[in-house]
Amino acid sequence: MIIIAERINGMFTDVKQAIADKDKKVIQELARKQTEAGASYLDVNVGTAAADQEGTMQWLVESIQETCSTPLCLDSQKPDVIAAGLKAVNADNGVILNSTPLNKKNDDEILDKFIEMANQAGPKASIIALTMDKNGVPQDTDNRVAIAAEIVSKAMEKGFATQRLFIDPIVLPVKVPNAQVQPGNILNAMEQIQYLADPAPHMTVGLSNLSQGTTERSLINRVFLAMAIPRGLDSAIADALDEKLMNVVATSEMLMDKQIYSDSFLKVYASTNR
Amino acid sequence: MIIIAERINGMFTDVKQAIADKDKKVIQELARKQTEAGASYLDVNVGTAAADQEGTMQWLVESIQETCSTPLCLDSQKPDVIAAGLKAVNADNGVILNSTPLNKKNDDEILDKFIEMANQAGPKASIIALTMDKNGVPQDTDNRVAIAAEIVSKAMEKGFATQRLFIDPIVLPVKVPNAQVQPGNILNAMEQIQYLADPAPHMTVGLSNLSQGTTERSLINRVFLAMAIPRGLDSAIADALDEKLMNVVATSEMLMDKQIYSDSFLKVYASTNR
Repeated sequence: MIIIAERINGMFTDVKQAIADKDKKVIQELARKQTEAGASYLDVNVGTAAADQEGTMQWLVESIQETCSTPLCLDSQKPDVIAAGLKAVNADNGVILNSTPLNKKNDDEILDKFIEMANQAGPKASIIALTMDKNGVPQDTDNRVAIAAEIVSKAMEKGFATQRLFIDPIVLPVKVPNAQVQPGNILNAMEQIQYLADPAPHMTVGLSNLSQGTTERSLINRVFLAMAIPRGLDSAIADALDEKLMNVVATSEMLMDKQIYSDSFLKVYASTNR
Repeated sequence: MIIIAERINGMFTDVKQAIADKDKKVIQELARKQTEAGASYLDVNVGTAAADQEGTMQWLVESIQETCSTPLCLDSQKPDVIAAGLKAVNADNGVILNSTPLNKKNDDEILDKFIEMANQAGPKASIIALTMDKNGVPQDTDNRVAIAAEIVSKAMEKGFATQRLFIDPIVLPVKVPNAQVQPGNILNAMEQIQYLADPAPHMTVGLSNLSQGTTERSLINRVFLAMAIPRGLDSAIADALDEKLMNVVATSEMLMDKQIYSDSFLKVYASTNR
């Protein structure tokens, strides 16, 4: 499972403060701890507070790379901020551009731009593409799958390998009732998305979004993750420091026969997934 | 979710001892605690130690019924032991006959006998039917589904409502590697079994069997349960006293939109599922 660790994000108070103080140590400690916990990638998001988002992204990337070589996932709604991160990133180990919709309100073909940026970054650069388009997040399962199909077909058209694509079907908070985008519908969308291409694109979710504002965040995240893995989910932007969550990942992989059972399967997983 | 609580079973040391000592209190305490934990049914299994299995089953049933009215699930491989339990049971609240294969080596049409016994017990009596036949437990997914289809069609033939049928696709211990009956294959079987009839039969599993002999029993049980509920599993013979497991049940039902989210959804579930 490709775990993209979510903690280096300016939305968290400690990271926001570290950015304001230009305090590398807080960032580097988070990079180290998440890597040890089994993160495959470290998400890097400057948040909304920093005045100079591009400069902040570069500073975060440089600070992290001073201390560890875990691949990064450059996370911004602004392509220019991701582009700034790409200038500083060592893409040899891999890098993810997070994220792009299919297209935008103004008919901006933003996915094309991301494919160009990823190609410039090198053969190990991947893209997270959201199942949303100029009309926003679809209110039903079928349109999610339809947009995912368009994303996959556009990638193929451009000769961009589907294995470099992460499709994110967008989970919404359970606390905000919405009949059309219930978790069960997202699972059904996943079931179809996994068969859109062969080899299949990766599938990821911003897992913590599901439990936003709830009293049982880890439990809700864990249960949904266990439900989604048999439907083809092979990646998640998630809290790698949540040991219970990482144990559910290990157990799911064991049950789905991606790791054989041994009495120490949790430890084996933690040491081999790094 | 129909939770059939597993603890009143002569395979557990405390129950075995209570049976030997004819000590009702141990049994009644387990009945009370499991009911409070949210059990829909209490499984009753005399185990293998008791010399007089039929008499022991009756004594267990009578002891439990003195203290609570939770419906019982009479669990034995011997139809005569279940029949003995049925003589003592109050079937007005429901009762489950646990369990029968489709048929046996000697071509004994044992499912027919169970349907007869259930019909005699009254309209609220159900049957757990295992997806196995005279050849034993099938070594692949398709044969599990095929046997389930035969069970459903036999029930329909006899005018036995499919809602009175619990299909058990039989999970095997992960500790014993067997490529053909991996948990992923059982999930695929469930996906098909749920559409065998409309209204669908219930689906159940002997959940704890999966984690037999492992070092992480509750975790493995919990993760598989979360995976199986979206595939139509609506019942499990499980450890109702495992609070973490019951919380996964509540969270799964909430995510699958069987309960709306509220900050106290775990408590709400515990109090309404009884």
